[in-house]
Amino acid sequence: MDLKEKKLSSKEIYKGKILDLYVDEVICPNGHKSSRELIRHCKASCVIAKLDNGNFLLEKQYRYPYDEVILEFPAGKCDKNEDPKITALRELEEETGYKANDIEFLGEYYPTCAYTDEIIYLYFASNLVKTKQHLDENEVLNVFEVTKDELKELFLNNEIKDGKTQACYLYYLLRDK
Amino acid sequence: MDLKEKKLSSKEIYKGKILDLYVDEVICPNGHKSSRELIRHCKASCVIAKLDNGNFLLEKQYRYPYDEVILEFPAGKCDKNEDPKITALRELEEETGYKANDIEFLGEYYPTCAYTDEIIYLYFASNLVKTKQHLDENEVLNVFEVTKDELKELFLNNEIKDGKTQACYLYYLLRDK
Repeated sequence: MDLKEKKLSSKEIYKGKILDLYVDEVICPNGHKSSRELIRHCKASCVIAKLDNGNFLLEKQYRYPYDEVILEFPAGKCDKNEDPKITALRELEEETGYKANDIEFLGEYYPTCAYTDEIIYLYFASNLVKTKQHLDENEVLNVFEVTKDELKELFLNNEIKDGKTQACYLYYLLRDK
Repeated sequence: MDLKEKKLSSKEIYKGKILDLYVDEVICPNGHKSSRELIRHCKASCVIAKLDNGNFLLEKQYRYPYDEVILEFPAGKCDKNEDPKITALRELEEETGYKANDIEFLGEYYPTCAYTDEIIYLYFASNLVKTKQHLDENEVLNVFEVTKDELKELFLNNEIKDGKTQACYLYYLLRDK
């Protein structure tokens, strides 16, 4: 069966700083009309970064939608037309003060396919050299190191709930780094 | 350092079928004012379901924001005040026609913490009995079985890009089912 829906019209509801909202009218494969609420967001990158001592970099960051401080791997939005690999290297260095000499693509992550078009590109970074952290204005986060075993425990205890971080770790495990 | 932001005001931009959009004014920990664009969405559940023959259930579904048919584990939104475990059992049976006699909580998944408050609860279902698929109106999806090795290959080849499905599989691997 053809699963695809056909767009009839698209209405812009909101154009914002980090996201835009549209409501589109579609025809479903069964011929019925329906509407789709849709967030458009730029691409982003996320990095699992391994230090020469075998430890991994984690960040604590307050996330307003959850009103919670959560644990995440370094990540950030792609600048316009920026190669996601460059984003990964740039955000890693800006947020943690580590420059990676090696970086490897792990996979793509679709956060919530029902209502956003965001794609996050996942990377593994190694051969890290200490430089200097330079956060954006209003960006506040704490960076710390965990061992391989501590990282696994944090996932097992569901203390890392951030999806891009979970997906990045899945690919790291599958690729047996 | 305190990482928390303080809400000053909240403006409702859009109230929709599956999501609401707000723009809130906040004070950052550094004392600067900023705004936060925020999607509010109900909770949901996602299930990795293992058949008695050792195979797993996957779904092919067209996802409008990506204009792509993607692979996902069974999942769906919680009805108002519904226990996410009940959602998992209900959606599994509605979408695949399998009733699970055993279900186990794996972990929580925050899809995209910068701009949505959605939480997806992840489950492992087993001891499945065939009943009958009953899809919602306008819900169109194909259900199929894959072996354990085929499932791993699909992840390794990045043919499964859906984040909740990746996170569910991570917990399944970590808990060594």
